[in-house]
Amino acid sequence: MLTRASIDRVVAAALEEDAPWGDLTSEALIPESAVAEAALVARESGVFSGGEVFAAAFRLTDPRVQVELSVKDGASFQPGETLAIVRGPARSVLTGERIGLNFAQRMSGIATLTARYVAEVAHTHARIVDTRKTTPGLRAFERAAVVDGGGRNHRYSLSDAVMVKDNHLAVLTQRGMSVTEALQAAIDLLPHTTHVEVEVDRLDQIEPVLAAGIGTIMLDNFSLDDLRTGVAQVSGRAKVEASGGVNLETVRAIAETGVDVISVGALTHSARALDLGLDIRITEAPAA
Amino acid sequence: MLTRASIDRVVAAALEEDAPWGDLTSEALIPESAVAEAALVARESGVFSGGEVFAAAFRLTDPRVQVELSVKDGASFQPGETLAIVRGPARSVLTGERIGLNFAQRMSGIATLTARYVAEVAHTHARIVDTRKTTPGLRAFERAAVVDGGGRNHRYSLSDAVMVKDNHLAVLTQRGMSVTEALQAAIDLLPHTTHVEVEVDRLDQIEPVLAAGIGTIMLDNFSLDDLRTGVAQVSGRAKVEASGGVNLETVRAIAETGVDVISVGALTHSARALDLGLDIRITEAPAA
Amino acid sequence: MLTRASIDRVVAAALEEDAPWGDLTSEALIPESAVAEAALVARESGVFSGGEVFAAAFRLTDPRVQVELSVKDGASFQPGETLAIVRGPARSVLTGERIGLNFAQRMSGIATLTARYVAEVAHTHARIVDTRKTTPGLRAFERAAVVDGGGRNHRYSLSDAVMVKDNHLAVLTQRGMSVTEALQAAIDLLPHTTHVEVEVDRLDQIEPVLAAGIGTIMLDNFSLDDLRTGVAQVSGRAKVEASGGVNLETVRAIAETGVDVISVGALTHSARALDLGLDIRITEAPAA
Amino acid sequence: MLTRASIDRVVAAALEEDAPWGDLTSEALIPESAVAEAALVARESGVFSGGEVFAAAFRLTDPRVQVELSVKDGASFQPGETLAIVRGPARSVLTGERIGLNFAQRMSGIATLTARYVAEVAHTHARIVDTRKTTPGLRAFERAAVVDGGGRNHRYSLSDAVMVKDNHLAVLTQRGMSVTEALQAAIDLLPHTTHVEVEVDRLDQIEPVLAAGIGTIMLDNFSLDDLRTGVAQVSGRAKVEASGGVNLETVRAIAETGVDVISVGALTHSARALDLGLDIRITEAPAA
Amino acid sequence: MLTRASIDRVVAAALEEDAPWGDLTSEALIPESAVAEAALVARESGVFSGGEVFAAAFRLTDPRVQVELSVKDGASFQPGETLAIVRGPARSVLTGERIGLNFAQRMSGIATLTARYVAEVAHTHARIVDTRKTTPGLRAFERAAVVDGGGRNHRYSLSDAVMVKDNHLAVLTQRGMSVTEALQAAIDLLPHTTHVEVEVDRLDQIEPVLAAGIGTIMLDNFSLDDLRTGVAQVSGRAKVEASGGVNLETVRAIAETGVDVISVGALTHSARALDLGLDIRITEAPAA
Amino acid sequence: MLTRASIDRVVAAALEEDAPWGDLTSEALIPESAVAEAALVARESGVFSGGEVFAAAFRLTDPRVQVELSVKDGASFQPGETLAIVRGPARSVLTGERIGLNFAQRMSGIATLTARYVAEVAHTHARIVDTRKTTPGLRAFERAAVVDGGGRNHRYSLSDAVMVKDNHLAVLTQRGMSVTEALQAAIDLLPHTTHVEVEVDRLDQIEPVLAAGIGTIMLDNFSLDDLRTGVAQVSGRAKVEASGGVNLETVRAIAETGVDVISVGALTHSARALDLGLDIRITEAPAA
Repeated sequence: MLTRASIDRVVAAALEEDAPWGDLTSEALIPESAVAEAALVARESGVFSGGEVFAAAFRLTDPRVQVELSVKDGASFQPGETLAIVRGPARSVLTGERIGLNFAQRMSGIATLTARYVAEVAHTHARIVDTRKTTPGLRAFERAAVVDGGGRNHRYSLSDAVMVKDNHLAVLTQRGMSVTEALQAAIDLLPHTTHVEVEVDRLDQIEPVLAAGIGTIMLDNFSLDDLRTGVAQVSGRAKVEASGGVNLETVRAIAETGVDVISVGALTHSARALDLGLDIRITEAPAA
Repeated sequence: MLTRASIDRVVAAALEEDAPWGDLTSEALIPESAVAEAALVARESGVFSGGEVFAAAFRLTDPRVQVELSVKDGASFQPGETLAIVRGPARSVLTGERIGLNFAQRMSGIATLTARYVAEVAHTHARIVDTRKTTPGLRAFERAAVVDGGGRNHRYSLSDAVMVKDNHLAVLTQRGMSVTEALQAAIDLLPHTTHVEVEVDRLDQIEPVLAAGIGTIMLDNFSLDDLRTGVAQVSGRAKVEASGGVNLETVRAIAETGVDVISVGALTHSARALDLGLDIRITEAPAA
Repeated sequence: MLTRASIDRVVAAALEEDAPWGDLTSEALIPESAVAEAALVARESGVFSGGEVFAAAFRLTDPRVQVELSVKDGASFQPGETLAIVRGPARSVLTGERIGLNFAQRMSGIATLTARYVAEVAHTHARIVDTRKTTPGLRAFERAAVVDGGGRNHRYSLSDAVMVKDNHLAVLTQRGMSVTEALQAAIDLLPHTTHVEVEVDRLDQIEPVLAAGIGTIMLDNFSLDDLRTGVAQVSGRAKVEASGGVNLETVRAIAETGVDVISVGALTHSARALDLGLDIRITEAPAA
Repeated sequence: MLTRASIDRVVAAALEEDAPWGDLTSEALIPESAVAEAALVARESGVFSGGEVFAAAFRLTDPRVQVELSVKDGASFQPGETLAIVRGPARSVLTGERIGLNFAQRMSGIATLTARYVAEVAHTHARIVDTRKTTPGLRAFERAAVVDGGGRNHRYSLSDAVMVKDNHLAVLTQRGMSVTEALQAAIDLLPHTTHVEVEVDRLDQIEPVLAAGIGTIMLDNFSLDDLRTGVAQVSGRAKVEASGGVNLETVRAIAETGVDVISVGALTHSARALDLGLDIRITEAPAA
Repeated sequence: MLTRASIDRVVAAALEEDAPWGDLTSEALIPESAVAEAALVARESGVFSGGEVFAAAFRLTDPRVQVELSVKDGASFQPGETLAIVRGPARSVLTGERIGLNFAQRMSGIATLTARYVAEVAHTHARIVDTRKTTPGLRAFERAAVVDGGGRNHRYSLSDAVMVKDNHLAVLTQRGMSVTEALQAAIDLLPHTTHVEVEVDRLDQIEPVLAAGIGTIMLDNFSLDDLRTGVAQVSGRAKVEASGGVNLETVRAIAETGVDVISVGALTHSARALDLGLDIRITEAPAA
Repeated sequence: MLTRASIDRVVAAALEEDAPWGDLTSEALIPESAVAEAALVARESGVFSGGEVFAAAFRLTDPRVQVELSVKDGASFQPGETLAIVRGPARSVLTGERIGLNFAQRMSGIATLTARYVAEVAHTHARIVDTRKTTPGLRAFERAAVVDGGGRNHRYSLSDAVMVKDNHLAVLTQRGMSVTEALQAAIDLLPHTTHVEVEVDRLDQIEPVLAAGIGTIMLDNFSLDDLRTGVAQVSGRAKVEASGGVNLETVRAIAETGVDVISVGALTHSARALDLGLDIRITEAPAA
C-alpha cells in the first residue's frame, strides 16, 4: 500500500506536467459555476488498479472535487461497469481527467495483463512476477498493479536483493575463482535478509551455484526440456525461476515444467493502457 | 532538445528509485578496481532515441564513467548494431545499466513504433502525431522519442492549446448557446498564440465549428467515407485531424482520405520497449 | 486556474524561505493561546489577484488558520476596502502574513498595472499581452495576474509557440535561404497546434514572412506611421503585434494604428507591488 | 556568496519553467551544427549583479556552452559595455538566453536602484537596507543584488532576527504588561545572537523600548522633525532605523536626520528590470 | 514553531525512505479491515519533543489515522506515562510507527539531554545553547528540541550571525591588520541585525576584540581560572560564551565562572535517542 | 556505494540549510582572492567513513575547491592522522567546512562505534547489524557507515524484508489462527526474494514459527541461557538473531551463545560524532 506521501508527490508532479498554467479549454468554455458528475467507466473488461491514485489526480487539482470508488483495487470488471464517481466543479473535473485516466489506465492495464498470465498458469505451482523493467519514477505504482492483477513482485531495486548475472559470473571465472566459493564469500558480505538469486545459462552451472547455498536459481532462456531437467536437478534446494521467451502462448508450458517463479518483463514494460473512460455530465450549479 | 537540467532531474530520480542504497550484487561480487567496457547493442532493428538520457544514467551514478554515442537520436539501426560504448569502473557501469536501458528501450520503442506508422502513410499528406496519453513524469521524453521516429507532436498539455471535446460542446448546447458564437467568445479570451482545435462526432457539426474560425477540426471515429466527405467539406478552411480506430492496419486508408493529421495514442501509451542490450566486458584495472 | 498542487508547491517553498525555523518574534512575544482576526485591506485602489495563493500562505503555516476571501480575483477595489478575513492562532497568522502579502501585493500589482494598460486601449481593437519577462519560478502566477487585470497572455514558454526573431532570420539569410521557404520548412516540423509568430524590423520584411503562412507578425519598434502602413499591408492575413516603446503614454496611439496585439514586458518585469496591508487584532483565546 | 547548490537549484527550476520541452523555434530554424557567440551588452548604465546566475542558465541548458564574465558583480557599467561573452551551440545559447537575461536584468535592476539610493545618502551616516518584501523563492538572489549595489541587508527571515511591530506591542498593552518588561522577558528567550529591533510610531514609545536593552529602534513614518528628535533621544543607546515614505526624493533628508539605517522596500519589490541585451552572432560550425 | 510546510516536507521524505513501496509485513499479515489503537508510552523519564512531527508521520501515511497528543512539547514525563494516542487502520498505524518513533525519540532525546545540562546550571547566570553540529537536514527540528529541553539556540547557520574563529583571525594577523580595525571594517559590511561573536584562545586577545564593539566573545577551551579572569576582564562589555570541554561533569563549574552562554555540541551531535515505545492493540473493525 | 545522484541531493540540501544566503563571516573577513589549504585531521582514533560525502560538501559549495582523500572509507586511523586535503578559494573552504565535518564526523562516529562492537565479537560466529533506528533522511549514509565499520546491514526499510513482531503475532492469535499457517499464508503473498524474520519473546514460540519455513528468528530480550537454548533448538533451521539489551559490555557474551546476528540500534541512533577537525591555512593567492 503506497503511503499518502508517495501518491501525492508523484501525482502532483504529473498534474504540473499536464496543466502547468491551467486548462485553457475549460476556462474558456465552461462557466466557473458549472458542476460535473463523472463516471469512470470500463470500455473493456479487466482488473482495476490505481483507485487512490485516480482520486488524488482530482484532489490535487481542486480539493472540492469528491471521488467515490465503486470497486476495489484488484477487482475484475466488465465493459460498461462504473468504477468510480467524480463530483465537483466542472472545470476542475475536466482538468484532472487526463492524469486520473493516465494512471488508472496504465495501472489497470498492467493488472489486467498480469491477470491473464496468472490465469494461464492456474493450478500449476508457478507464480508470475514482474521485473525491474518498469517506468522510471513509477516503479512502486506499477508493482502495486502487478499485485492487483494477482502477480507477485520480484526484487524492487538493486539495493534489496542480489541477482548474480552472467557478467558477474564471468568476472569470477576470469579471476580464477570458484563460483561456489565466490558466491559464499559474497553472501557473507550481504545483509542476512538479502535473498541471493543466480542466473545460469546452462545445466552444468546449476551444481556449483547451488553448492553456495543460494535462495533462487534463475534458468535463463532454457528449453522446456532443460527447464524440466533443471527443476529435477535442483530438487527443492532452491527456488527455480524461469526467464526469457515468456509470453501468453508459452507461459503455460513453462509453468508445467515445475518452476516456482516465472518473471515477465512485459507486465510492466509493454502492457497496453486499458480503455477506461470518464463519462462526464456537466450542469449549472443549482441555485442556492 | 531537452535541457541538461531536465534530463538530470528525471534520471537522478530514476537512479535513486533503482539503487537507493547501492547495487548489492556488484559490490559483493565485483572488485572495486575492476573496469568495464560495455556496448549498447541492438537486439532488433529500430530507431534510436534517448542517447543523452542513456548517458546521464551512468554519469549520475558515477562521473568517472564515460559514454560515447555511436548513433544519433532518430537514426535507424539493424540488429547487432552498436549504439553506444560505455567505459568506467565496473561496479558503476553495472549500477547504471538498468536505468540507462529502461530509458533507451522505452524511448527507442516509441521512436520505432512511430516510424512504422510514419512509413505506412508515406507519400500521403498526413502527419502522425502523439497525444497526451503519456507516462506521468516522462512526457517531454516520450514526445522527443515521437519526433525521433519521424512523427510530430500534438499539444503538450492542457495549458498550451485548446481542444474542445464533446463535453465542452454539450455544455454550450445545454446552455442554449450557438456553438459558433461560443467558440468565438472563447477564442477571444485565449492567448493569440493558442491554437483551437474542436472535436466533432458528426458531419453536420462541421459547419458551425468552422464558422468560428478555428485552427483544426478533429473528426473523431469517423468512417473512411465520412472522413473523405469531411475533408471535402472543410476544404482547407482548417486542418483536419482524424482520431479513433487508428492502428497499423487502418492508418494508411485513413491517411488516404486526405486528412492532415492522424493522432495515435498508442505511440506512447502502448509502445513496446525495444530490445536493446548492454554487452559488458569486465577486466581488472590495468597495472598503473 | 492554477491547480492546488502548483499553488502549494510554490507557497510552501516561499514559507520555508521566510520562516525556516519559525517566527522568533511572535513566539517570544505572543502567547500560544492568543487568537487573531486580521483583515486584508487595500491601502490604494487596484485590481485584486492571488486570493487562493494568499490563503495558502496561512494554510501551509498552520491548517487551523481560516481565510475567507471577500473579493474575487479580477475585481476592482477602493482604498480601505477589505479583501479577505484571516482568523486563527495569532502566532500563525503573524508568521504567514509577509508571504501572503508578498504574493497578493505582487499579483495585484501586476493586475492593476495591466488594468491601466487595458483601460488606455478601451474601444480599440488591440489586446494587451504579457511577455516571458517574468519572475523565475512565478510565471504561472504572474500570467494569472495579467488575466485578472483584463490582459491576455502571450506564449508561456519556448516550448509552446514559435517566435522567430532577428537572430533566427539572420541565420537564414546568412545561409542563403529564402525566408519564406525557410519558414515553411520550419512550420512543417512543428506541432500543427503551434502558432508561429515572426518579428520584423522593417516594412519590406512583411511580404516574404506572410507568404509563409504564419499566424502573427510582430512589428518591432515601428513608428506609428509604419505600424499603420504595416497593418494595411498585412490586411488580415495574419495577426499584427506591436512591440517596443510601449508605455502608458504611448499605448493608446499604438492601439489606434489598428494592431491586434500589444505586448508589454513591463506588466511583469516592472510592476510595482500594490499597497495592501493586514490589519490584525489579537485577543486571548476565549475561555473554553 | 551563493553556493553552487543554491544557484543550480533555482536556475534549473527556471529553465524547466521556460523550456519544459525545448525551444521550438531554435530547433525548427537553426541547424544543430550552428555555433553562436553572444555578448551580454548593457543598453543603459547601471550596476552589474548576477554574473554566476547568468552563467548557470547556459551551463544548465547545455554544459558545452561557455560563459566568460567581463565585469564583476558590483561593478558599474555604461551603455554599450560588454558584460559577458557566451559561446557554444547556437540552439543552446538561444534556449538559455531569456532565463539568463531575466536573472541578470532583475538582479542588476535591484543593484542599480540600490546604488541610486546609496548615492543619494553619500557622506551621511545612514546605510540603505532592504526588507523582506522580496520575490518569493528569490530572496537570497535579491539580497545579493542589494549588496552588489552598495546597500546592506536587513534580517533575512522571520527566523534570524526579531522585529517587534505594532501588533506585538498592542498585545502586550492589552494584556496589561509593561513594554519594557515584556521585551526583556522576550529577549531572555531568544538566541543570544538574535538582534532585537522594535518599531515605534510615536516619540513617547522610545524610552520604554530602549529601557529593555534592544539593538535597534525603528521609527516608522516619522516626520523629519520627529526623526531628528528621536535620534537625539536615543543618543546612541541603540541603532535608529527610519522606515516609511522613503523614496529617491526624500531619502537624503531622512539620512540627514542622523538615523543609522534606512530601509527601502522598493529596492526589491518595485525595482525595474535593467535593460541588458544579448547580441548574438550565429555561424556554422567550422569545418573540422 | 515549525510551519506545516516544513514538517510535511521532512516527514514525507522520511516516510518514503522507510516505506518506499509499502510495509510488506503488515500487508501480508494484518487484514485490511483491522483497526489499531496505539499508545506512545515512555519507557524512561524525559522531556517530550516532536509531538506535531510524530503526528505527521501517521497523517502522511494515511490521513484516516488520528493522533491525539497527551503532553505538550517541553513537558517532563515519567516512565510508563502515555504521551499520545494513535487510532486508525492497523496497517497504516504500523507503517508510520518507526518514523513517528524515530523523530519523537531523537527530538525527545535531545530535549532530555538539554534539560539535564540546564538543571546542572540552575541558579547560575549561564544559558545552555546548541551549536551547528546538527544532523544534516534536521537542524530546525533539533533546535526546536533544544528549546523544548529548556536550552536556547545559538546561530542557525552561516548566514544569520557572525562567528569569527581562529582561522579568520590568523588571516588578519598574517595580512598585518589590526584585529580591532579589521573587525570594525567587517561589522560595517554586515547587516545591522547581525550579531558578531569572536572566538579567542588566550586572555590577551580579549581587549583588541572588545575594542571593536562586538556582541559576544567566546572563550574557547579556557581553564576555569582563565574563564573567571576573562569574565572579569570583559566586565559586561559583551556577552561571554564558554566552549570546549563541556560535559555534564564540568558544566556546573563552568557556569559558576560567571559566563553568560555555554555552548554544547553534544546536545545535538551525540544525544542518545530516548526510549519511547508504541503499545499497539489491534482489533477487527467493528461490524458496520 | 551511493550514487553521485544520491550524495548530491542530500549534501546540497544540507548546504542550503547551513548557508542559505552565504557565509557572512568569511565574506566579511576573508579577501575574495585568498586561498586555503586545509587538512582533515583526526583528533582521536577511529574508522573513516563518508569520504565522498565530505568531498561533495566542498564541490557543491564551489566547484573550484579540490578534495583529495588520503584514506579510504573503512580504514582505521590514529589521532593526528591526515584523512584528506582540501584546496581552493578560502571563503568557499570555510563555507563548506561545517557540513563536510558534520557528515564525516557522524559517519565516522558510526563506523567507529560499529568497529568496537565488531571487535568485541571477534572469532565468534556472530555478525553485528544495524536497525531502522536511523536518522530520517540519512539512512543510506548511516548504513554505509556501518559497513565501513565492519558491520553488516539489516533490512533497509519496511518494503524490502519482513519482520513479524509481537503486534502481528497477537493479531493472528486473536483471530484464532495458527501461527504456522498464518506465516505460511503470508510468505505465499510475498516476493520470493523477501526474507522473513519473526521476533519471539519466549522459547515455546520457536517451534511453530520455524515450522512455517522462515529465514531468521529473532530472540528478543532473551537471557543468555535462553539464547543458548534457543540456538540449540533452532539447530540451523533458520538464522538466529539476538536483540535487546545489547551493549559493549554484553555483546561478547551474547555472541558466544552461538547466535548468527546481533542487532544494535545504538550503532545509528546513539553513536557519538567522532572528533575530526579541519586544520586550515589561508594565504593570499599567489601573484599570477
